Amino acid sequence: MQKSISLDQIEAMDSRERVNLINAIVGFKCVNLIGTVDTLGNENLAVFSSIIHLGSNPALIGFITRPDSVERHTLSNLLETGSYTINHINSAIYKQAHQTAARYDKSTSEFDITGLHALYKDGFTAPFVQESNIQMAMKFKQKIDIELNGTILIIGEVQAIYYPEDCLCVDGFIDIEKADTITCSGLDSYHSTVRLDRLSYAVPDKAVRSINLNYVE
Amino acid sequence: MQKSISLDQIEAMDSRERVNLINAIVGFKCVNLIGTVDTLGNENLAVFSSIIHLGSNPALIGFITRPDSVERHTLSNLLETGSYTINHINSAIYKQAHQTAARYDKSTSEFDITGLHALYKDGFTAPFVQESNIQMAMKFKQKIDIELNGTILIIGEVQAIYYPEDCLCVDGFIDIEKADTITCSGLDSYHSTVRLDRLSYAVPDKAVRSINLNYVE
Repeated sequence: MQKSISLDQIEAMDSRERVNLINAIVGFKCVNLIGTVDTLGNENLAVFSSIIHLGSNPALIGFITRPDSVERHTLSNLLETGSYTINHINSAIYKQAHQTAARYDKSTSEFDITGLHALYKDGFTAPFVQESNIQMAMKFKQKIDIELNGTILIIGEVQAIYYPEDCLCVDGFIDIEKADTITCSGLDSYHSTVRLDRLSYAVPDKAVRSINLNYVE
Repeated sequence: MQKSISLDQIEAMDSRERVNLINAIVGFKCVNLIGTVDTLGNENLAVFSSIIHLGSNPALIGFITRPDSVERHTLSNLLETGSYTINHINSAIYKQAHQTAARYDKSTSEFDITGLHALYKDGFTAPFVQESNIQMAMKFKQKIDIELNGTILIIGEVQAIYYPEDCLCVDGFIDIEKADTITCSGLDSYHSTVRLDRLSYAVPDKAVRSINLNYVE
């Protein structure tokens, strides 16, 4: 049977319960680790689950961060250096990824705490997560303040993409399930995926059909 | 072996290939059906995969829509009425959901085309998807133009939540996997999920542990 929760009930809820509810209700979330470093060399790694594709040309990705009234190392580092990395989470590292959400002071590196390894490559300022199968180098482009609740949308442009060679398809699609990328729901539930199908481009008056995954040889 | 794609290579790609690549690389996406109706009663239903949780108090959800230089019925309808619904996609309806992405004219209802049923309830203006297991009534709050690429962030507040009664946990978490909610990657790959674990709140110097799913009786 279907049940419902009204706006009045949402507003009257215990705050922790409401956080669990509203974070879950949005659907499965795009969860990644964001790596940064400040100009003194202090590294930071943090899990973010409000990440969105904004456009492909230019290749823009956005993420939401809480107000910077409290210390937010990811935000201050990327504003300072203009650089950050986005690293996919896989089934071998999701517990370490979750642990990065704990509050450490700025001199503590979440890489050290979790045992994940910072990887510097191709002259890029920010550290990648070595254990991540898909990694992106990002350049900060814009910060948009969302006045409704004081959150911030950070927009960056993809500078480079690193991926396992057997996961790229001939049409540009990267099979992130094959790369063991996972998703999350709510604040704390982690899920691997099982492909139902890949569907053809939708046009009027034509039934969608399955399309094959043709990997680049 | 790991391979890489540089910014120059991204910019030089065939446009369709780049769209497939950048849509996939962000991670698993939050995909939902958005239902609207205009003041003349023309219904619209469209699949959106750039949806994000913005905050829990107030309960705000955002989604990205393309520029309104071409006809965008979801956008014009929700600006006209202030109302829309967000409906989770499950394994029984993902093909119909995908088909809503085809371009139909305004007088054509994607409900009629796909066989999904419009459901009006509790005095809410916009139609819900009857076949969707988790549904939300949304009130339009703010439109933010993203000048970098001409996309638009639409922010709405949750007015009501409808869910299967056996999916709510005592701590407010809704088990969307139990409700058969699915996720997508890229523009066209649909995936069901398998829970790895639900993890305890992360605090420094304490290992995360599994937490039980205690459903409301």
